[in-house]
Amino acid sequence: MVPAATLPCMGATSLEHNARVAVDTGTSRYDIVIGSGLLGAPSSWDGLPRASRAVVVTNTTIAPLWAARLRAALEPHYAQVSMLELPDGEEHKDWPALNSIFDHLLGTGCDRKTVLFALGGGVVGDMTGFAAGCYMRGVPFVQVPTTLLAQVDSSVGGKTAINHTLGKNMIGLFYQPQRVICDLDTLTTLPQRELIAGLAEVIKYGPIADAAFLEWLESNLDALLARDPEVLAYAIRRSCEIKAWVVGQDEREGGLRAILNFGHTFGHAIEAGLGYGRWLHGEAVGCGMLMATALSVRLGLVQDSLLDRMRLLLGRAGLPLNGPALGPVRYLELMRHDKKAEAGEIRFVVLDAVGRASVRPAPDQDVAAVIEQYTASAA
Amino acid sequence: MVPAATLPCMGATSLEHNARVAVDTGTSRYDIVIGSGLLGAPSSWDGLPRASRAVVVTNTTIAPLWAARLRAALEPHYAQVSMLELPDGEEHKDWPALNSIFDHLLGTGCDRKTVLFALGGGVVGDMTGFAAGCYMRGVPFVQVPTTLLAQVDSSVGGKTAINHTLGKNMIGLFYQPQRVICDLDTLTTLPQRELIAGLAEVIKYGPIADAAFLEWLESNLDALLARDPEVLAYAIRRSCEIKAWVVGQDEREGGLRAILNFGHTFGHAIEAGLGYGRWLHGEAVGCGMLMATALSVRLGLVQDSLLDRMRLLLGRAGLPLNGPALGPVRYLELMRHDKKAEAGEIRFVVLDAVGRASVRPAPDQDVAAVIEQYTASAA
Repeated sequence: MVPAATLPCMGATSLEHNARVAVDTGTSRYDIVIGSGLLGAPSSWDGLPRASRAVVVTNTTIAPLWAARLRAALEPHYAQVSMLELPDGEEHKDWPALNSIFDHLLGTGCDRKTVLFALGGGVVGDMTGFAAGCYMRGVPFVQVPTTLLAQVDSSVGGKTAINHTLGKNMIGLFYQPQRVICDLDTLTTLPQRELIAGLAEVIKYGPIADAAFLEWLESNLDALLARDPEVLAYAIRRSCEIKAWVVGQDEREGGLRAILNFGHTFGHAIEAGLGYGRWLHGEAVGCGMLMATALSVRLGLVQDSLLDRMRLLLGRAGLPLNGPALGPVRYLELMRHDKKAEAGEIRFVVLDAVGRASVRPAPDQDVAAVIEQYTASAA
Repeated sequence: MVPAATLPCMGATSLEHNARVAVDTGTSRYDIVIGSGLLGAPSSWDGLPRASRAVVVTNTTIAPLWAARLRAALEPHYAQVSMLELPDGEEHKDWPALNSIFDHLLGTGCDRKTVLFALGGGVVGDMTGFAAGCYMRGVPFVQVPTTLLAQVDSSVGGKTAINHTLGKNMIGLFYQPQRVICDLDTLTTLPQRELIAGLAEVIKYGPIADAAFLEWLESNLDALLARDPEVLAYAIRRSCEIKAWVVGQDEREGGLRAILNFGHTFGHAIEAGLGYGRWLHGEAVGCGMLMATALSVRLGLVQDSLLDRMRLLLGRAGLPLNGPALGPVRYLELMRHDKKAEAGEIRFVVLDAVGRASVRPAPDQDVAAVIEQYTASAA
């Protein structure tokens, strides 16, 4: 359960622009490529499964910015490249949007060799991956994440899903991509609010797995917020290394992988309680991490000083530090639907030390106290 | 591509009531248990994954006949057993019915250890398996097929799916059950039309894989139609042995497994062209096998005498020998949506000999000629 022992150490933070991180789940092996100018680089698209058809799934926001470049790069590789634009936003991560992918694939005669490319953020990636996993019982797909959050988290590791009215990501698959292409250029068009939300998932990797990375983030947060490309490149690479290392040991979340959900149990309750799309996922996770750290302190697992560090770092990033005032009863009710819950018992990712996390239940009264402390009414 | 060489020979057709056939796909191993009184036998339910919750998914036809017996047998194993009845029929093998499973699972607080039991025919099995594969990214499930077709075909091998308006079984997964329990008693309540439809899938295994089994079927068809329990038990066991052997070599239909779709390319066109539910799946497959055999003869692969044998056997079974008169153009259009099609080229399962099949394209004019010959207008 404790990752720190064998996680490869931070490499020199020499901040090169290009990097390649290998993911090996035992049943599947692929690379995450991180760098500038990757969308247009022929080498990005070499060596993928051969097919006559490619379908780029994107959304209405990303399409005018980046779709033409990807399409042009794919055209030498496929006899036919088609585009499909989904509506933008977490509130559209649902069956009707998923089915519109199937409508497109079937309506244009795509076969079981067709390759799907997910060009966009986490919603596009999760839905395209799920569609690829189900279409004719599985076609290959490639992740081309265009948000910081998708580059460091959702595009890596093969979790795909749609939301159900009764819970986030409740219907989905573990289905690995053929490759992940993180083009740093696409972050230049990312709104600042989304960059900040993505930083929440970057910050996550420090407290759960890598104390040195947490310190590095404390030192480099201002450069990240200013989008210094070398600093961003390093943060993405290190995040992907940690995620690849965790997923390589536990693809299907039998144990260790659950630590990647640090802050997510509280965060999902915030998102579901408000209605999806009101807060960005990363914002809810950032606030959730603060709640989870506070819970860890309350359970006597870590010192108050770590809570102070997290509050300071998340606050400097501009992430919300207080959840919506839904009341502890509603939070608990929402959290009982968490996928980690078993027989109605909520299981929380908590910190055992800086850089070390585990999963365990917690008394309702401690959870309620933390929620009281970190919701808007108490702000 | 040729199964005959290493397929285990027919065992003594001593027709014992109980049998156990092992399926081993490399990534998954489970047993098919075939016998009488299995629903109520405690041993049927021993050794499954432990959980506090079990959910029996069935349909409105099967529920009053068999659900109480299964529920009673499961109650000693699970703290809570709930039931969900789907509408009966292929026309309900769609998203709304699938989503009603998710509604039930989430609405009653099922977690990621909950075990699903599919009690019914192929539609219930395909949908329950798909739901199990997607719910919280995968929960265990058990197949409890109650139709001959499901016992010999759809419950074995892990193919799950729903239909899309543009094609049958287009959205689905390879997701293996924990166990398959074929209780012969449940066939006593099966309408004769459905028994006959199931026989089409039994007959299929002869021409594609086992010449001796085809001869056995020719000798024992009357006893099968009269539901002689020993003869039925043997037919189910041999069908499962052949299917398990094929699936064990090619779980994901990269090659050999496609021969199990003998008659299905034509058959799916019949089903889709008429609208799902007008013909039973097995009826369409039976007629499709005749068309596929005729195509094999036209392509010079097998003698006319095999076509005569198939026509005689399918006719004796009471299966329709002529498809609906949709016209060859419409058939070809529908078949281009077949999952085996690649880059618009339809690939047919044809017979190379009695007991040996392969997959290949065929000239449109030959396909059209066969359709003209075996559709109602030509009857």
